[in-house]
Amino acid sequence: MNKIWTRRHLLDLQSLSAEEIVTVLDAAREFKGVGQRDIKKVPALRGKTVVNLFVENSTRTRISFELAALRLSADVINFDANVSSLKKGETLKDTVRNLEALNADFIILRHSASGAPHFLARFARSHVINAGDGSHEHPSQGLLDVFTIRERKARPDGLLTGLRVSIIGDILFSRVARSDIWALNRLGAHVTVCGPRTLVPAHFERMGCHVTHRIDEALDGADVVNFLRIQQERQGCTMFPSVGEFATLFGLTLPRAKQLKPDCLIMHPGPINRGVELESELADGTQSVILEQVSNGLAVRMAILYLLNGVTSTDPADR
Amino acid sequence: MNKIWTRRHLLDLQSLSAEEIVTVLDAAREFKGVGQRDIKKVPALRGKTVVNLFVENSTRTRISFELAALRLSADVINFDANVSSLKKGETLKDTVRNLEALNADFIILRHSASGAPHFLARFARSHVINAGDGSHEHPSQGLLDVFTIRERKARPDGLLTGLRVSIIGDILFSRVARSDIWALNRLGAHVTVCGPRTLVPAHFERMGCHVTHRIDEALDGADVVNFLRIQQERQGCTMFPSVGEFATLFGLTLPRAKQLKPDCLIMHPGPINRGVELESELADGTQSVILEQVSNGLAVRMAILYLLNGVTSTDPADR
Amino acid sequence: MNKIWTRRHLLDLQSLSAEEIVTVLDAAREFKGVGQRDIKKVPALRGKTVVNLFVENSTRTRISFELAALRLSADVINFDANVSSLKKGETLKDTVRNLEALNADFIILRHSASGAPHFLARFARSHVINAGDGSHEHPSQGLLDVFTIRERKARPDGLLTGLRVSIIGDILFSRVARSDIWALNRLGAHVTVCGPRTLVPAHFERMGCHVTHRIDEALDGADVVNFLRIQQERQGCTMFPSVGEFATLFGLTLPRAKQLKPDCLIMHPGPINRGVELESELADGTQSVILEQVSNGLAVRMAILYLLNGVTSTDPADR
Repeated sequence: MNKIWTRRHLLDLQSLSAEEIVTVLDAAREFKGVGQRDIKKVPALRGKTVVNLFVENSTRTRISFELAALRLSADVINFDANVSSLKKGETLKDTVRNLEALNADFIILRHSASGAPHFLARFARSHVINAGDGSHEHPSQGLLDVFTIRERKARPDGLLTGLRVSIIGDILFSRVARSDIWALNRLGAHVTVCGPRTLVPAHFERMGCHVTHRIDEALDGADVVNFLRIQQERQGCTMFPSVGEFATLFGLTLPRAKQLKPDCLIMHPGPINRGVELESELADGTQSVILEQVSNGLAVRMAILYLLNGVTSTDPADR
Repeated sequence: MNKIWTRRHLLDLQSLSAEEIVTVLDAAREFKGVGQRDIKKVPALRGKTVVNLFVENSTRTRISFELAALRLSADVINFDANVSSLKKGETLKDTVRNLEALNADFIILRHSASGAPHFLARFARSHVINAGDGSHEHPSQGLLDVFTIRERKARPDGLLTGLRVSIIGDILFSRVARSDIWALNRLGAHVTVCGPRTLVPAHFERMGCHVTHRIDEALDGADVVNFLRIQQERQGCTMFPSVGEFATLFGLTLPRAKQLKPDCLIMHPGPINRGVELESELADGTQSVILEQVSNGLAVRMAILYLLNGVTSTDPADR
Repeated sequence: MNKIWTRRHLLDLQSLSAEEIVTVLDAAREFKGVGQRDIKKVPALRGKTVVNLFVENSTRTRISFELAALRLSADVINFDANVSSLKKGETLKDTVRNLEALNADFIILRHSASGAPHFLARFARSHVINAGDGSHEHPSQGLLDVFTIRERKARPDGLLTGLRVSIIGDILFSRVARSDIWALNRLGAHVTVCGPRTLVPAHFERMGCHVTHRIDEALDGADVVNFLRIQQERQGCTMFPSVGEFATLFGLTLPRAKQLKPDCLIMHPGPINRGVELESELADGTQSVILEQVSNGLAVRMAILYLLNGVTSTDPADR
């Protein structure tokens, strides 16, 4: 149906072209309207079965995908991998084959192992959607981030050409950072990554980013600043300073925010540690688009389900 | 649509007028019929999103609200707060703002902190329903209790004028007792509360109740006796005798039941500790309306969802 | 509607006639087609309420029943008994009465106690479906197993007359084995059960099986071999050799598989312990119908829900 979108799976953003990304974003714009209607429901996926296979917990992402599927009128199954056969020693491959034997049309996978969705895609007959794999990618998050920036800051060419976007925090272990970087680069933005030396290694330059360890450099002249969530559970390990030290060195405080351009967008993938990555006042302030990111995420996920559903070929070359 | 019902939220019964309570009860009577049809479904909330945000476990109340929403054709999301972002340190306020960014229309909140739903209502754009907050209120339970009494014992004025209702057990910590007392008083009933001195303090008289510590006084002449569930987990604390002692002093035994008027209704919010609050024979006997309470709860919850849905103003003054 | 199917509940296969079993299998054949359609949905159970009451965990069986109900357009409630009133000391009977007070039409019960669903059926007004009770029966599994065999190996009479089926593994504690034996015998198959002496006692001969403790005898000339899952948690108890020893003595290895007739079907109820009951190559090989079993299970469960729904009498004699 759609000439540009020909993929059966959404595994990462690294392999997507600018044209493909724009196709998702354009479809998401249509679906955003559905969420504002009185009856938030369209029949596009009626009679389709969507399985949320979350081997790692993530209530927010799960609910966003669940609502996206329900509003497209699909049947949704939540597969809690903590109490499932996976615990009885069944392999992920067997689990997915079993779900496909039940005619699952979509497997939405959250997994702690980088590459798990790519592994599934090698044999899956259903559509595989990566809902976050290890420290690798979180493509729906990357898409909702560029959707949010594009809605506010699109250039005349409809892309993000020349926009300056800084991503701040734990870059090394972040799947959000990687997906953001691929999508932003593809749409023409200039990306700066910033954080402690241990969490922002120099090799990110090879992904096309500017790397800095000074927050001032990341804030000055930025059109968008995206603060990543600090994983408090990592505190105390050798790569991570204390939360307090992190907030002091890399958090967005009120004085620091004065450095920002007045129309600079403040982003965060949530959930926020208030007072760590961001002062509360800034999270809730006029520059913040954090809740728009959440709304846009639902629209983007509806668009992903809708576009994948239109690709029926099972030729493995089409993945 | 409905001239009497103008509230966007259902937070408590303390602030409801008799007219408002009767409006819910009348609507519930209509919805009770839906549960008895062959196809138990009406399209009133099609395309609406209902979130069960249960920060404290309650399978029964959750299922009752879930079925109420499904039978009104809404989409329902169960948010298990035990595995959610709330555990990652996100505030309740952020969680609800995120759900609203997903266009949730209803937030049904069960929370261990008294006042949590009132706190949400101060900023919520969705409809907030209190499904039990700490020791404060459980308004849908109070409404189903008066619905059940009214179906069996309504006076010519359609209210409960002059009816004698005794509530027996742990009154101090009970949100059910408080909601019952407000609703019963508003509809004109005379309420007696009864239990050990530590769990039924004298200041309940200021809520318009008669207070007694003798079970005989609570049973004599009552039109309705409502036994509250004993929280066994409280046993051994300084305010609570042993379960055995409680059953001996305040439980409804077969000999004691002979004191009751033959048409006195026996109620219990469930789940019953058989042999503690009530002998099994009495729980299952002809005077018991315990399962009617459960059925009526579903009808009352459908009525609540339906009435709130009709109030669209977002003027905070209208809550 | 259906002249042969007159039962309100599905409790076991022991009490089913060949004609009744064939009625389910014929209905399941129709429903199998629904799973292959573009819109996998029929309106047969619209407005009905199905409760998955799983007191023992089983993600696979729960999902299969949940999808069966959703594809028949029913409303489905998942009742997680681990966090429910059952933990607060409520009896199973009270739980079910409460669900019926909410107008549940179907109670699908998984329970660790043999006979639990029969107990419910003595008072239930809803349809009770046994989704596995202790070591007793798992009737939907037995039906999907004979459905799978019949699709591949039906005799001219439409039954399994004279077919040789071997069931291998832990027979003593297996509800799958018991349901399979009843169904296979009813349809005319010859059943051999095989495993260690402690797990395959001689008294199974009274159920009409041939009993052997030599795997070679079970494999030779079999038309179907069905390997049951080894409960690794039982390892080390007095009745069970180590998993390694079991695999050596009773697992289907590649050399052993050469003994099988070329068209012998290899079955397993899942989840497989690869390398224990079966070599991986055989589980995924051309003789394996393990994933067909999963697909057929969904069709069989749709047929069960559909047939029971057609029986409306509440005369207890009709169960």
